[in-house]
Amino acid sequence: MGSGGAPLEGFVNAERSALSDRKHGEMNEDGVSRRGDPWIRTVRTEVTPPSLGDNTGDVDRLLKGIQRLLPGGTILPGLSVIKRAPAMLREQGYSVEALLFEEANAWRVFDLLPPHQETPFCGLALDLGSSTLVVRLVNLGTGDVESERSFLNPQTVVGHDILTRIHHAGKPGGLVELQRLVLDGLNREIRLLASNHGTEPERIAGMAVAGNTTMTHLLLGITPYWICREPYIPAANTFPLFKASEVGIGIHPEAPVLVFPNVGSYFGGDLIAGIIASGMAEREELSLLVDVGTNAEIVLGNKDWLMGCAGAAGPALEGGVAGMGMMAGPGVIDRVTIDAASGEVRTRTIGDKAPVGICGSGLIDLAAQLYLAGMIDVRGKFVAEKCGKKLREIDGIFHFVVVPSEASATGEDLTLAQTDIDALLRSKAAMYTILTTVTGMINVSFKDIRNFFIAGTFGSYIDPRSAIALGMVPDLPLETYKPLGNTSLAGATRVLLSKRARLKMDGIRDRITYIELNVNQEFMNLFSAARFIPHTDASLFPSVRAQ
Amino acid sequence: MGSGGAPLEGFVNAERSALSDRKHGEMNEDGVSRRGDPWIRTVRTEVTPPSLGDNTGDVDRLLKGIQRLLPGGTILPGLSVIKRAPAMLREQGYSVEALLFEEANAWRVFDLLPPHQETPFCGLALDLGSSTLVVRLVNLGTGDVESERSFLNPQTVVGHDILTRIHHAGKPGGLVELQRLVLDGLNREIRLLASNHGTEPERIAGMAVAGNTTMTHLLLGITPYWICREPYIPAANTFPLFKASEVGIGIHPEAPVLVFPNVGSYFGGDLIAGIIASGMAEREELSLLVDVGTNAEIVLGNKDWLMGCAGAAGPALEGGVAGMGMMAGPGVIDRVTIDAASGEVRTRTIGDKAPVGICGSGLIDLAAQLYLAGMIDVRGKFVAEKCGKKLREIDGIFHFVVVPSEASATGEDLTLAQTDIDALLRSKAAMYTILTTVTGMINVSFKDIRNFFIAGTFGSYIDPRSAIALGMVPDLPLETYKPLGNTSLAGATRVLLSKRARLKMDGIRDRITYIELNVNQEFMNLFSAARFIPHTDASLFPSVRAQ
Repeated sequence: MGSGGAPLEGFVNAERSALSDRKHGEMNEDGVSRRGDPWIRTVRTEVTPPSLGDNTGDVDRLLKGIQRLLPGGTILPGLSVIKRAPAMLREQGYSVEALLFEEANAWRVFDLLPPHQETPFCGLALDLGSSTLVVRLVNLGTGDVESERSFLNPQTVVGHDILTRIHHAGKPGGLVELQRLVLDGLNREIRLLASNHGTEPERIAGMAVAGNTTMTHLLLGITPYWICREPYIPAANTFPLFKASEVGIGIHPEAPVLVFPNVGSYFGGDLIAGIIASGMAEREELSLLVDVGTNAEIVLGNKDWLMGCAGAAGPALEGGVAGMGMMAGPGVIDRVTIDAASGEVRTRTIGDKAPVGICGSGLIDLAAQLYLAGMIDVRGKFVAEKCGKKLREIDGIFHFVVVPSEASATGEDLTLAQTDIDALLRSKAAMYTILTTVTGMINVSFKDIRNFFIAGTFGSYIDPRSAIALGMVPDLPLETYKPLGNTSLAGATRVLLSKRARLKMDGIRDRITYIELNVNQEFMNLFSAARFIPHTDASLFPSVRAQ
Repeated sequence: MGSGGAPLEGFVNAERSALSDRKHGEMNEDGVSRRGDPWIRTVRTEVTPPSLGDNTGDVDRLLKGIQRLLPGGTILPGLSVIKRAPAMLREQGYSVEALLFEEANAWRVFDLLPPHQETPFCGLALDLGSSTLVVRLVNLGTGDVESERSFLNPQTVVGHDILTRIHHAGKPGGLVELQRLVLDGLNREIRLLASNHGTEPERIAGMAVAGNTTMTHLLLGITPYWICREPYIPAANTFPLFKASEVGIGIHPEAPVLVFPNVGSYFGGDLIAGIIASGMAEREELSLLVDVGTNAEIVLGNKDWLMGCAGAAGPALEGGVAGMGMMAGPGVIDRVTIDAASGEVRTRTIGDKAPVGICGSGLIDLAAQLYLAGMIDVRGKFVAEKCGKKLREIDGIFHFVVVPSEASATGEDLTLAQTDIDALLRSKAAMYTILTTVTGMINVSFKDIRNFFIAGTFGSYIDPRSAIALGMVPDLPLETYKPLGNTSLAGATRVLLSKRARLKMDGIRDRITYIELNVNQEFMNLFSAARFIPHTDASLFPSVRAQ
């Protein structure tokens, strides 16, 4: 039971995700009226019919009509719009729905439709993960999430980890193959999404994509070769708007595709999306954002400054944060409580099925509960007298029986090995050390942090009490901890819908200070101290009291 | 001899044209340093190589380098540029030549080249005439005209006149066929132009196109259907920049194609190009611009106001202005003098060859000289006693022998028929009437006109003394008359080269007042009076004294 190599990013549960996504509507903490400032929009235009007294050209009258509704700024029609306008205006009695997007202070008209469309005017937000992609159909008129699909990144057939893919992209035809894989998969899901929603992919009028730096390069067919070679630079950190057809995305061929900028090779657009989703860059008070993914990526700051920290924290993190869990799914244990007096273990499973395994959040609960019940000590070692019969030795390694064979779905005991706990403790120590290091760098105390945002679907299910009890995160008031779910998708959705969010995206990219985390002697000292539960310095965790 | 249906627009003599085109360099009367404000340009950028201390992305470092040289404004790289940048920068030692164009206050980077290009950086100016197209290769670095080709509009296989083509475009496949014809012809000439110049069409980095409204629509594949149907409106009067590949023009696929705006169905981009070439819209004093083409198109104004007048002046003009000439070419008479005392006719031919016929400017000279020598009267009728043996009656119509058979290249007499003179007088009367009407509409006197610009290759060869003697144009000081040659091409060249000329183009389009010329009773009265030589009111032409 336990670990396995599945990265935490994989903790996407379609059912839960759909529930949490609906919450997007309430996320609007920055005072921006989402529907008030779209940059992809329709304008229903009543065009004055031509007459001998007004012989302005068709397209010019159309543009005048649009200008009345969108004053200021240049309005540029596409060639296909100019070609279609004369017939369309006459067929529709000089009333049409123009599709526009804004770019560099100009509105581009990219299609004309008959007025009173039955299908809603939709766009896509994409969380372009290395392991999982989540594509969301958003009603651009109302801002509502209409539908969503998550699917395995088809590039995993080439390699699970990013480095393998970067190397593959360097081989002849490799880059094209990787781009093809992700585009084919994405386009297939877009077709399904559209068809389930009773519309055509060609009716989808825009897209916002948030992904890490390498994934962004691979989607666009740009070489990621230099990302993993000294001095580790991406081909591009910022992108203009692309046309969907130019990238190869199967929506309206003239629809704009916005790709989130990167800060650097190890700090991608997904994190900028996270900052936007959290609203931390507009707040007076200090916030911290942690994306618990393959790497721990951290942002600290407020409306005046932002500091980002990401990248390999070295071997300490490898197989650490990433190695704790297994994919959530029916029958997977996600909550554990242990009665300290009786030692009885109570588990909750997803879908209330008979247990099959444990996911990351369940594992953190389990370890915290074992510690609080005195069944593991400060080093994370099993305390034999407390564990009693639940402790077994298999191949020289102690295992704790969480669910006996008669209660499990597999017919076998579900056990937690000493090695699982050791891995978890390295992982939590790495997390705490990074947090200590980052705050220390800029002389900020944990207690100054008013919001501790946890990004990532996985993060949403961690019980902060358990994470504190283990010493994974600082001992702050529980209300400080705010799980945000898939912030990459939430941020992409915001930017898809709002001009101000789009400006904010560029602003964040420009003002963030990126710090590479080096694993030096000081880091290793802090790390060693943090491998205990909750810490060698118990005064840091006054709320944690084991039995 | 004489007339024939060839429109005057056809008076393009490749040899002469090439000569006059070289003059472009001196035409810069508006004080704009042509090379000072390009909107299509290269920027040689030395990019700081990446280092561990500066891990900005390749494209971002490139954009920073460009920004240092082009401060202000957004710089947007194309996807193909982003894809090529990493390898290109490394191969070229971080020194590249970026190709850019400006659109809506943003610079778009559309290609990267190795520095120190051997072939010059070129663009095209196109005079998109109904009968003849002239395409000019311009060095975008120096502003020099490198080379030029003129060729028959391939759409003439469908029909010589614009109306036939508009009707053809309305048939199934007709529009596509017409666009195909002009594009194929144009692309063939572009290939020849490039190959003669030792370059590739794909190296041509931009294009400016000036044509009449219908030709503009046909080139872009936009229906001209409504241009000739009440209320006579074009599909579009203004155009955004297009990509060459999107229009189908065989130059650099990402190169910008600028299409001159139209004022209306009968007042096209070619005239706006003419206004730019004349510089009249920047002058304090009053100027008049006449484009002596298929229709007489007139612009009047100064830096404060502009009035345009064009379109069918009714039957009075049909076969009038348009019916005077034949194509210029070797052996064609272009200058005539008659010795009043002896009645001797002296002719000058193009290339000093034996005479084969007479072109428009020669015809105007001939008629004026006949009048001044007393050989035709104020009604344009031959005066038998003055013409003597040179007058013959053929099929009941008097003919004047200009060149006897023994001196002509054809071995036959070259003669001028009474009907030729009648047609010419209708034509000159129409011109004068239009000029009177237009100036009268806004209460301007001919003597207020300081510059009388004559546009069109044909106009360049008219001797203003002859035109005045006939009463075709007002009796103004000779220095008032300024032939400008192919102003459509000259204006397109200016706009291709200069940002300010491009802004001026839009400004002119916006501030011009367009007046439709109606042939009413007053017009016909004026027309009748103007059919005499020089006019029934001789006081209007004090300088003209016949023998």
